[in-house]
Amino acid sequence: MITVALAKGALLNDSVARFQSAGLDFSAVLDPGNRQLMVPSHCGRARALLVRNGDVPVYVAYGQAQLGVVGYDVLREHQMPVAQLVDLGFGGCRMAVAVKASSGYQHAADLPPHCRVASKFTHCAREFFDALDLPVELVHLTGSVELGPLTGIAEAIVDLVATGRTLRDNGLVAIEELFQSSARLIGHPLALRLDRGDLQLIVEAMRIQESLPKNPA
Amino acid sequence: MITVALAKGALLNDSVARFQSAGLDFSAVLDPGNRQLMVPSHCGRARALLVRNGDVPVYVAYGQAQLGVVGYDVLREHQMPVAQLVDLGFGGCRMAVAVKASSGYQHAADLPPHCRVASKFTHCAREFFDALDLPVELVHLTGSVELGPLTGIAEAIVDLVATGRTLRDNGLVAIEELFQSSARLIGHPLALRLDRGDLQLIVEAMRIQESLPKNPA
Repeated sequence: MITVALAKGALLNDSVARFQSAGLDFSAVLDPGNRQLMVPSHCGRARALLVRNGDVPVYVAYGQAQLGVVGYDVLREHQMPVAQLVDLGFGGCRMAVAVKASSGYQHAADLPPHCRVASKFTHCAREFFDALDLPVELVHLTGSVELGPLTGIAEAIVDLVATGRTLRDNGLVAIEELFQSSARLIGHPLALRLDRGDLQLIVEAMRIQESLPKNPA
Repeated sequence: MITVALAKGALLNDSVARFQSAGLDFSAVLDPGNRQLMVPSHCGRARALLVRNGDVPVYVAYGQAQLGVVGYDVLREHQMPVAQLVDLGFGGCRMAVAVKASSGYQHAADLPPHCRVASKFTHCAREFFDALDLPVELVHLTGSVELGPLTGIAEAIVDLVATGRTLRDNGLVAIEELFQSSARLIGHPLALRLDRGDLQLIVEAMRIQESLPKNPA
């Protein structure tokens, strides 16, 4: 039985669509009435685990799911031992440093040394500021990071930016990009090595879709 | 200006009611149309920050909020330097070890050494199993921890139990309690020390309410 870990939330619709084109129909997870977290595929030969973003690489790393779909941002932050198989292209956003628009900072290097930076992604932020050689105090928040500069708990934030609307609504502006993120198909390394072809077929089907030219929206 | 950090979610209604009886009306945060995360009180002399559970002690520890309301479970897990002022009594639940009902384990000490235990509260779990002298491998999950034993990623979980319905629905049973939790009023130690009486009035009002006999529901 193939188990696939899918992230609840923004990536779910596209994840289901991509598995569907690869022959696994998990559309039952999109049913608004569904309360199950473990959902069999239409064909019965696979099942989906519906978990939080950050838990997808955990289930795949421990081999409880052979495949999973999760944002590159989560993979960068949590550094779990999983194989990155395909960049699925959807769920595009960027990890960025943002400050109050009124602050006048143009680059991350303009921030005062030892200032506070709030983020859900403190590992990514640590790497970035270490590479800049700028000592900062990281404040780990679990949500609504855009409140950071408004309340004064932090001079800057490191957060995901998709449309930029949340930043604008809060008088913030992105001044530097850490990296681009998008949804990735990941796999359990040992499951891939022991695979008798079933997983490979799915991975290949999803890789081919990704290389096809996109239909205009 | 007094700033109060309130946790979104299950504790919010009661938190607002308790501040209201202490003279601060934050009922605007309960308006379903409210999208603001920083909401002034009706009287204008205070404001509420609407943040995630785990972020309440962070805002209070850094002094961006002088007071906050959060579950004792979060305080135990995150160990931030805040003053615990009043046990507000609502939001009661318990942190417990749970296993599959079919597993036959009766006590935490029955678990096999080096088995995996999944939790959102890995600090609390680590303390508990260390005190038991039982070496376990903790798997940090961020949500739906009850999936742990069902998927096989963990033999047991450590999680909050309120009514016990989630456990029952997933064929799990609580076998040992780590501690009881309820909502706590917390404060920024320095703000309390420098207070000219405003904070003390609120804290006292909330303390008195807590010591009054409860009306029958």
